[in-house]
Amino acid sequence: MKQPYHHKTQYTLRELATGLDATIQGDPNCIVTGVGTIQQANANQITFLTNPLYKKYLASTSAAVVVLQPCDAEECPVNALVTRDPYYAYSKIAAYFVDKPQSIVGIHESAVVGKNCKIDTSASIGANCVLGNNVTVGAHAVIEAGCVINNESIIGEYTHLDANVTVYDKVQIGKRVKIASGVVIGSDGFGLAKHAGVWHKVPQLGTVIIGDDVEIGANCTIDRGAIEDTIIENGVKLDNLIQVGHNVRIGENTAIAGCVGIAGSAVIGKNCMIGGAAGIGGHITIADNVVITGMTAVSKSIRESGVYSSGVGGLTTNAEWRKNSARFHRLDQLVERIKKLEEEKSS
Amino acid sequence: MKQPYHHKTQYTLRELATGLDATIQGDPNCIVTGVGTIQQANANQITFLTNPLYKKYLASTSAAVVVLQPCDAEECPVNALVTRDPYYAYSKIAAYFVDKPQSIVGIHESAVVGKNCKIDTSASIGANCVLGNNVTVGAHAVIEAGCVINNESIIGEYTHLDANVTVYDKVQIGKRVKIASGVVIGSDGFGLAKHAGVWHKVPQLGTVIIGDDVEIGANCTIDRGAIEDTIIENGVKLDNLIQVGHNVRIGENTAIAGCVGIAGSAVIGKNCMIGGAAGIGGHITIADNVVITGMTAVSKSIRESGVYSSGVGGLTTNAEWRKNSARFHRLDQLVERIKKLEEEKSS
Amino acid sequence: MKQPYHHKTQYTLRELATGLDATIQGDPNCIVTGVGTIQQANANQITFLTNPLYKKYLASTSAAVVVLQPCDAEECPVNALVTRDPYYAYSKIAAYFVDKPQSIVGIHESAVVGKNCKIDTSASIGANCVLGNNVTVGAHAVIEAGCVINNESIIGEYTHLDANVTVYDKVQIGKRVKIASGVVIGSDGFGLAKHAGVWHKVPQLGTVIIGDDVEIGANCTIDRGAIEDTIIENGVKLDNLIQVGHNVRIGENTAIAGCVGIAGSAVIGKNCMIGGAAGIGGHITIADNVVITGMTAVSKSIRESGVYSSGVGGLTTNAEWRKNSARFHRLDQLVERIKKLEEEKSS
Repeated sequence: MKQPYHHKTQYTLRELATGLDATIQGDPNCIVTGVGTIQQANANQITFLTNPLYKKYLASTSAAVVVLQPCDAEECPVNALVTRDPYYAYSKIAAYFVDKPQSIVGIHESAVVGKNCKIDTSASIGANCVLGNNVTVGAHAVIEAGCVINNESIIGEYTHLDANVTVYDKVQIGKRVKIASGVVIGSDGFGLAKHAGVWHKVPQLGTVIIGDDVEIGANCTIDRGAIEDTIIENGVKLDNLIQVGHNVRIGENTAIAGCVGIAGSAVIGKNCMIGGAAGIGGHITIADNVVITGMTAVSKSIRESGVYSSGVGGLTTNAEWRKNSARFHRLDQLVERIKKLEEEKSS
Repeated sequence: MKQPYHHKTQYTLRELATGLDATIQGDPNCIVTGVGTIQQANANQITFLTNPLYKKYLASTSAAVVVLQPCDAEECPVNALVTRDPYYAYSKIAAYFVDKPQSIVGIHESAVVGKNCKIDTSASIGANCVLGNNVTVGAHAVIEAGCVINNESIIGEYTHLDANVTVYDKVQIGKRVKIASGVVIGSDGFGLAKHAGVWHKVPQLGTVIIGDDVEIGANCTIDRGAIEDTIIENGVKLDNLIQVGHNVRIGENTAIAGCVGIAGSAVIGKNCMIGGAAGIGGHITIADNVVITGMTAVSKSIRESGVYSSGVGGLTTNAEWRKNSARFHRLDQLVERIKKLEEEKSS
Repeated sequence: MKQPYHHKTQYTLRELATGLDATIQGDPNCIVTGVGTIQQANANQITFLTNPLYKKYLASTSAAVVVLQPCDAEECPVNALVTRDPYYAYSKIAAYFVDKPQSIVGIHESAVVGKNCKIDTSASIGANCVLGNNVTVGAHAVIEAGCVINNESIIGEYTHLDANVTVYDKVQIGKRVKIASGVVIGSDGFGLAKHAGVWHKVPQLGTVIIGDDVEIGANCTIDRGAIEDTIIENGVKLDNLIQVGHNVRIGENTAIAGCVGIAGSAVIGKNCMIGGAAGIGGHITIADNVVITGMTAVSKSIRESGVYSSGVGGLTTNAEWRKNSARFHRLDQLVERIKKLEEEKSS
């Protein structure tokens, strides 16, 4: 499935800076052969500085070039690429050093493809993939080995499914979407009706619709809607092991860190950032531009942008934690004691 | 693997109500072609009302029919199907509108099947499945594409494994079980003995036994027992991304929401409901009819039915949270201050 | 793929004790045919006692043999194998009763293998596996059905991948590693640069390096490094459904329970134990020999060994929890009230 490839393995700083809103400080002809961290980069590697935690390494860096902000330029002991947005500039430069071979166009002979599929001739279908009937795969899409795509699902142009992804039936996936291995899209939502002491399955008749430029990390699960659809809007980024319940809607450009669970029918706004292992309750609405810190339980709707948290922050020794936890469980009594003191004083 | 199918796509209200303990209010001959939400349903769709949050939409619904409780019937502006249990009645009606094709009976030519397997002639084994030796697959069972079932495992009648499920050896799965994609059943439990500073693997010699009518959501993991078996009783329902440790027993009809982790040797009673992302400690016993709220840490056994929680509930701004968290970490000192005030007063 | 096998199914106690630092109390010729729990073991089964919770069952056990500590030997009513480390001794004895057939050596005819792979002739490649180009598989390694291993990855000697594991390109996996089904190793880290309101992907140019004797539980995800590599050192043990972010390093012999999330660039020391569903923040360092209790949020670096926790411990009824949670959210006011009482008293 893979073919030999040759890509350029070294660039001048001038070449790397082309098209970026950035200024070269130093030698534009210096040669760069790869990327490195500010601590470890060698004299042929480019690095970047954005996190202030790493500023202390700037003076002693051995990198060929550091991509950095104007305020750090003066202290840079080597060549610099100066820009207001070093991490973004770095992301574009790093792309020159990706050396994955291009996927071979066409359908691998071991793949099993159903009836009436529309697979663009520029798409790649990997070994041991299984496609149902009436599946559509757009131009330049890549479906890696072992993926299963069920009936009537649609995979957009330039979308890339890594190995062993499962897509159920009727799912719609947009353009330039990246889906990591082990992801499951379109499984039944957790819809149950209790009757006479026993749970009965509620049929899940909606599907999942995923916009363009979405990224979904390894082993995420996205359930299909119960009646209407589960919707992931354009530009949403999901880290690994995230659960998206049925009927959820996630707004444009929202980014969600690993291990987050989103219960059914939650609606999350645009441009939100949700920290790792947070939990979003069912039927909750979150406004645009909301930040949720890690491990927060979002137990009610959030109507205004801002930073939100729950629980008790701060890590302590287990011994202190036990002591304070015990006090917490008598907080109500404590308040009564204070009330009594106040009353006695005023009497 | 899939064949053409034809199913009826419209029904009268009278047909849909057949067999349900429900009364038609309005026109029994009205035509229903699908389901919708109470807000969005069109004049050919049926909807339901159970959650009081959605009562406000009743007066203006455009649905053909609303399935609802007697107390809401009078306010219904369209046809109604009146029943004490609308969600259950809806679940039965929605089943008429499932339009998945029937799986083709037989073993796909690309499947790899070991020796001495007993596969019922009415079962379906999908493309690229791999079955070990001595595997049993019951009547009308469906194993979708890419599943792996190891030696001596048993899949009951009418049980359905979605694509890319992994079942280890000697696992027993009951009848009418539904298992979503990415599920792993029968992996080794986390059994380790530390000796001379290094962890040694403790062989996991039990297996997993799953009852009838169980449902297991996408990417759940269920470990095999260390000595005896991990047991999931009849009617248990698991949402997505749940971890079930070795030797765990989950009682009948218990329902568990997504992202819950259950540590080894925990025993959970019947008819429990466990909220999303809760954690159940090892060697803990939970009584029947217990409700655990989301994200709770169950750190000790629960002997009586009831609703249980841990941590601190309530979401706040990050600023408030920081302030109160800081106070929490001085709770012990705070109590000392109150004690001093009390003593001085009484002296 | 599997061949018939015969293994011995019964042993004398003397045989089982061979090579262990343990003393037989009772009949060294007693016959043992399997393992059991101390409560359930029958007269041909061996069991062990380490957890004091189970001491109460010793007097009435029907086991053939109990593996136990010297302090418990006198009370043992049946044969005993006396050792300072019963659980370790049990782990070695239990290994005699594992009855999985040996994997058949060679490459299954349905596997798809790329160019220039170096697969040792003693290795086993299961049905429907897909290997990219330049993949190395060491002596006696076993790759079970449905695994995908991408270009240039290396699998060490005696390493065992269960079914449906995904290994991306250039990943290095050591010797005697055990990887459960559904694991994903080498997926892209969650690297995003926001520019003009939109997230841009930061290429993930590192890989994953896994040492010897590592164990990785079902459906874990381990991301590749952004620049340098994600590193799992020798002897690390991971339970199920753990997320390991990019650039993370986990030190030797650290054991991590299920559902833990480790954010990017965290560095965890040697010999740590991390409880279930804990969350480790990004760019955090944890010293050697640290114990983190379950569901703890590690929000800052830990410089000294010890036991650490966060949040509020203790489970209560939901009613009490609501009351105390409400008080928590007024903790700051509470402190002000106490301050006022103190001031008035001293004035």
